[in-house]
Amino acid sequence: MVKALVLEEKGKLSLRDVPLALDLGPEDVRVAIRAVGVCGSDVHYYTHGHIGPFVVKEPMILGHEATGVVVEVGEAVTGLTPGDRVCMEPGIPNPTSRASKLGLYNVDPDVRFWATPPVHGCLTPHVVHPAAFTYKLPETVSFAEGAMVEPFAIGMQAALRAGIRPGDVGLVIGAGPIGMMTALAAFAGGCATVYVADLAQPKLDIIGAYDGIEVINITEQPAVQAIAEATDGWGADVVFECSGAAPAVLDLPSQVRPGGTVVLVGMPVEPVPMDIVSLQAKEVRLETVFRYANIYDRALALIGAGKVDLKPLITETFPFDQSIAAFNRAAEGRGTDVKIQITMPTA
Amino acid sequence: MVKALVLEEKGKLSLRDVPLALDLGPEDVRVAIRAVGVCGSDVHYYTHGHIGPFVVKEPMILGHEATGVVVEVGEAVTGLTPGDRVCMEPGIPNPTSRASKLGLYNVDPDVRFWATPPVHGCLTPHVVHPAAFTYKLPETVSFAEGAMVEPFAIGMQAALRAGIRPGDVGLVIGAGPIGMMTALAAFAGGCATVYVADLAQPKLDIIGAYDGIEVINITEQPAVQAIAEATDGWGADVVFECSGAAPAVLDLPSQVRPGGTVVLVGMPVEPVPMDIVSLQAKEVRLETVFRYANIYDRALALIGAGKVDLKPLITETFPFDQSIAAFNRAAEGRGTDVKIQITMPTA
Amino acid sequence: MVKALVLEEKGKLSLRDVPLALDLGPEDVRVAIRAVGVCGSDVHYYTHGHIGPFVVKEPMILGHEATGVVVEVGEAVTGLTPGDRVCMEPGIPNPTSRASKLGLYNVDPDVRFWATPPVHGCLTPHVVHPAAFTYKLPETVSFAEGAMVEPFAIGMQAALRAGIRPGDVGLVIGAGPIGMMTALAAFAGGCATVYVADLAQPKLDIIGAYDGIEVINITEQPAVQAIAEATDGWGADVVFECSGAAPAVLDLPSQVRPGGTVVLVGMPVEPVPMDIVSLQAKEVRLETVFRYANIYDRALALIGAGKVDLKPLITETFPFDQSIAAFNRAAEGRGTDVKIQITMPTA
Amino acid sequence: MVKALVLEEKGKLSLRDVPLALDLGPEDVRVAIRAVGVCGSDVHYYTHGHIGPFVVKEPMILGHEATGVVVEVGEAVTGLTPGDRVCMEPGIPNPTSRASKLGLYNVDPDVRFWATPPVHGCLTPHVVHPAAFTYKLPETVSFAEGAMVEPFAIGMQAALRAGIRPGDVGLVIGAGPIGMMTALAAFAGGCATVYVADLAQPKLDIIGAYDGIEVINITEQPAVQAIAEATDGWGADVVFECSGAAPAVLDLPSQVRPGGTVVLVGMPVEPVPMDIVSLQAKEVRLETVFRYANIYDRALALIGAGKVDLKPLITETFPFDQSIAAFNRAAEGRGTDVKIQITMPTA
Repeated sequence: MVKALVLEEKGKLSLRDVPLALDLGPEDVRVAIRAVGVCGSDVHYYTHGHIGPFVVKEPMILGHEATGVVVEVGEAVTGLTPGDRVCMEPGIPNPTSRASKLGLYNVDPDVRFWATPPVHGCLTPHVVHPAAFTYKLPETVSFAEGAMVEPFAIGMQAALRAGIRPGDVGLVIGAGPIGMMTALAAFAGGCATVYVADLAQPKLDIIGAYDGIEVINITEQPAVQAIAEATDGWGADVVFECSGAAPAVLDLPSQVRPGGTVVLVGMPVEPVPMDIVSLQAKEVRLETVFRYANIYDRALALIGAGKVDLKPLITETFPFDQSIAAFNRAAEGRGTDVKIQITMPTA
Repeated sequence: MVKALVLEEKGKLSLRDVPLALDLGPEDVRVAIRAVGVCGSDVHYYTHGHIGPFVVKEPMILGHEATGVVVEVGEAVTGLTPGDRVCMEPGIPNPTSRASKLGLYNVDPDVRFWATPPVHGCLTPHVVHPAAFTYKLPETVSFAEGAMVEPFAIGMQAALRAGIRPGDVGLVIGAGPIGMMTALAAFAGGCATVYVADLAQPKLDIIGAYDGIEVINITEQPAVQAIAEATDGWGADVVFECSGAAPAVLDLPSQVRPGGTVVLVGMPVEPVPMDIVSLQAKEVRLETVFRYANIYDRALALIGAGKVDLKPLITETFPFDQSIAAFNRAAEGRGTDVKIQITMPTA
Repeated sequence: MVKALVLEEKGKLSLRDVPLALDLGPEDVRVAIRAVGVCGSDVHYYTHGHIGPFVVKEPMILGHEATGVVVEVGEAVTGLTPGDRVCMEPGIPNPTSRASKLGLYNVDPDVRFWATPPVHGCLTPHVVHPAAFTYKLPETVSFAEGAMVEPFAIGMQAALRAGIRPGDVGLVIGAGPIGMMTALAAFAGGCATVYVADLAQPKLDIIGAYDGIEVINITEQPAVQAIAEATDGWGADVVFECSGAAPAVLDLPSQVRPGGTVVLVGMPVEPVPMDIVSLQAKEVRLETVFRYANIYDRALALIGAGKVDLKPLITETFPFDQSIAAFNRAAEGRGTDVKIQITMPTA
Repeated sequence: MVKALVLEEKGKLSLRDVPLALDLGPEDVRVAIRAVGVCGSDVHYYTHGHIGPFVVKEPMILGHEATGVVVEVGEAVTGLTPGDRVCMEPGIPNPTSRASKLGLYNVDPDVRFWATPPVHGCLTPHVVHPAAFTYKLPETVSFAEGAMVEPFAIGMQAALRAGIRPGDVGLVIGAGPIGMMTALAAFAGGCATVYVADLAQPKLDIIGAYDGIEVINITEQPAVQAIAEATDGWGADVVFECSGAAPAVLDLPSQVRPGGTVVLVGMPVEPVPMDIVSLQAKEVRLETVFRYANIYDRALALIGAGKVDLKPLITETFPFDQSIAAFNRAAEGRGTDVKIQITMPTA
């Protein structure tokens, strides 16, 4: 029996003992969890009980943004030893599936992802995880910052698939946590400037405090107009759609330059209208992203080198025994909250 | 004054004399036209008077799919001489625009394109054209087949932007002329097999007669089911949407493989709903195409080498003095018609 | 004890019983071998005892180009059943290595490759192999042709990494078996025409008999001159260096077009001089290839669809009990020999 | 007659009047020069009289790294007006050549490049230049820093062709001016860290003072060992060879990761040996660079936004009437000199 934060059903959380098998396979490591971020998806399962086709039908442990310390390694593990400070990639694919062999393990249909029903998450003192998806934290990266790698990885995946070229002008639509992560990844990843558009000024203040980020409050000026002014009418090289809002999707063709790229990061609940002819007139390429693959090491390289600083985005931290309070705070959706984290007791 | 097929206004064609300046610049060639294909866009201007924002406001010469013989060359022209058999790329960009410098001259906003208002087309005995956009026909390519290069170039552009990799499975939705061209370009361009889906059996019979093309009559079986059977449930590597139909656009995510590519070739009149979340779940890349750039030489290489045979797609040929009849025939939209051509008198 | 063709040491082959553990893991299949091709590397180990750093230090079973019939499947195997006709990818990587996670399992340093010391090959009646690297043969593909997939996969890897675009002009330097495979892959993979240059006319006669392949006998005309004539002085879009000869490597810059691609397939024993400045003046991209990854399914798609026909390249076939004669024949290096195969008794 | 710094012949400079036609074409601008950097190639023509096939056979004005102020614009020029502060791309291609149409105008064989025999350079008070290759300086960029865009553009071209992905580890071999520019472009362009290896500590001190740059003094530790330690034995994602030294070229395969990229920037005078087999074993891609194309706007975006600061690399500045002294200083090759500039009188 282990203690865990359990989503019993929609709207009901318990911090209670759970019977959990934690057998260590030869290629696994056992990790003592130290910090866990609360993700919008965790909160959505709590408040809605489902995300698209994924429905919470039985009690499930929440949490998938985690760091910890290795406490035991399987007999075939070579790169990790007890005491290593690590973060874990929460999706575990079948490594020999057709998608995984192609390097696209994130789109392997058989991937098992923490805190996606019916797979348990990591808000519990110990987890067993494949060593291949467990990454050492650089010395300069704290447990708290390491727990930011997971959401940052989504922004990084967007930046990679964008195929940013040095000196590109980027535009991010939507300043939620993922929009912020995407903006930081795009700037560190080669953009000269990244413009971030939203209607909520408190969010824009947070992300606009970073070097290289310019903000557009769309209640004052449409993003298309701001980007046209900034680029002499040419348009952004890459537009990252992170709002999932239908009107934003319709506006994309007017924001991107001829021959430019749109990355669809936000997830509209329903199909939304796209202006295909206007995209064609500029011969725009559109990329979609789904989680990430082969990102953790490069995300850690950027954070460890100090090129990306995610610490200002950690708004508040709760101890594990106040996890439910942490979720309730996150569920409030305060305009100035970016990331709520939960820390585990170390003894 | 030169004789020309003039669209006077919506629904009214004349074969009449037109005052046309045909001054030869130093980098131009003068070409005696030999064969001109009738394009769906020519017919659309005839029957509707406009295409999107392009409106026929004054008499305009139609035609943009042309071959001919060089009769005079400007003083700075080096690669062409009188007597050369040629075909002409109908869009003339500003060669030093920002888009052109990038090699994307097709999306140069200042491109002047034959038979797109207010620019005259080529259904007239002589044209003056920049040598840089005039291409020699290989000896093995007739004037008639050479006049097929223009529509084939659209299919080629789709195949290039798809980034086909040798042995890919292709799926083309829609067996109109552009769908057919795309299927042939995709097969010659590296696909192992190209499936073409439509509901009109006569069109499927025409394209299905080619090696490497398999047809799907969607009145008998949905394309998604056919492609799933053909690929063991994996999906097509590349799906070319050539129908412009909203339901087809919605179906794309179920047809393409994880990590695959969709090329949007068809042009829906209005914005159409796209299922972004389903595209993201497979991390699909979407490409759009707009005409073509840097395609004519490679299209001619394929046709000249005999790897692509477009002759079976020329349904019927009319002499220039029966141009109006040719347009009326094309406007009928017979199920077995692919391309109607018009030939010029040679003396 | 199983019977096998064993390379005892340099220059000494035996067909004898070998003690071999053939335990079936849960994700493995057991395959009864039907046909095995003799590769140049097999012959090289026989005649020289080593290839680069790989030295035959103890008896090793030869052979890595194999087809067969599944006779037993591990308990976790889902896509294969006994009776399936299959071919096997001979390199088995660590599926969770850093390279494998990226989709580059061919460059995983831990890959175990059949008949590369100290790993045994497949010239024995049965093998056990991971299901994930075992591929069903299409109905139209014989065991003999299926055993050609392995060498063809090298040509396919070259064609993929070349990034061929539809209508490219290809040039292959060297008409050995791999040069031939590369030429066929490049043509099926999108080239308009592939030129193959060699000094041995018998080899050129074999490959020149294929549609789409033009040959250049360099004893009559330098390849650079032939390709300049064929391309109006522009150069080949892609040059595949398959000879491994130092003078050929020096000539590459003069053969490729500005902005074109060179693929280094041939393996020179020693470092060879490259004319970097001349490559830079055309801003050439160079790709290297190492075996293949994620190629078997697309190679089988091309062969199964009939777009590539490898049967004419199977020169002669020996029964298993005459394996040593087969190797001696292959070691002769007759000018008209492309592939020697060995067949297994079926009962 | 205009005053100009003239290379009369190898080893002999004059500051004298030159008869120079400065007719303004309709698409040209006339620019009053303000600052000109002295490039290694200028110095090389001075000291050696030739670079490869380019030989100084008659007096030639030197200089190609220039900024200035527009004083007159041709009648067809739209984007520039007198008074604009600008920098000029020194290579003028034929805009409708085959290479230019592809967007590869840098490899157009007909390009005319300032101060490359027999084309005059810009060390003279006024030049006439095509508006299409003249770029406005952002307000934040001084004339001196704007004159750094040309050498920086070479580093940018290297960074673009590298296809850097966010978080890559870069390694630059050689800390000359181009190595430094490449390192800065690679870091701004997405690398997490760029390691720069050289044996001259003063140069390493200059470039190592930048954020994100780590230096390797190869007299203390081989670059391969340093990069192995930094990457856990995996290798650099991208290695930029900027030394042109034969031993450095031989070492490349051991420095780059499996599946990584090598960019050949340095220009060895003679063909140099490359270890092709070792590159193949890691399936390395090699890119070459030649000057730059479509780089100036993105270089200016990075400098203008403050993401790249080139000012510390301007070592000393001479007035125009001391141009010869400036060249003699540059020819000294002091270890602590990076860029020597010449300024024009403004009245």
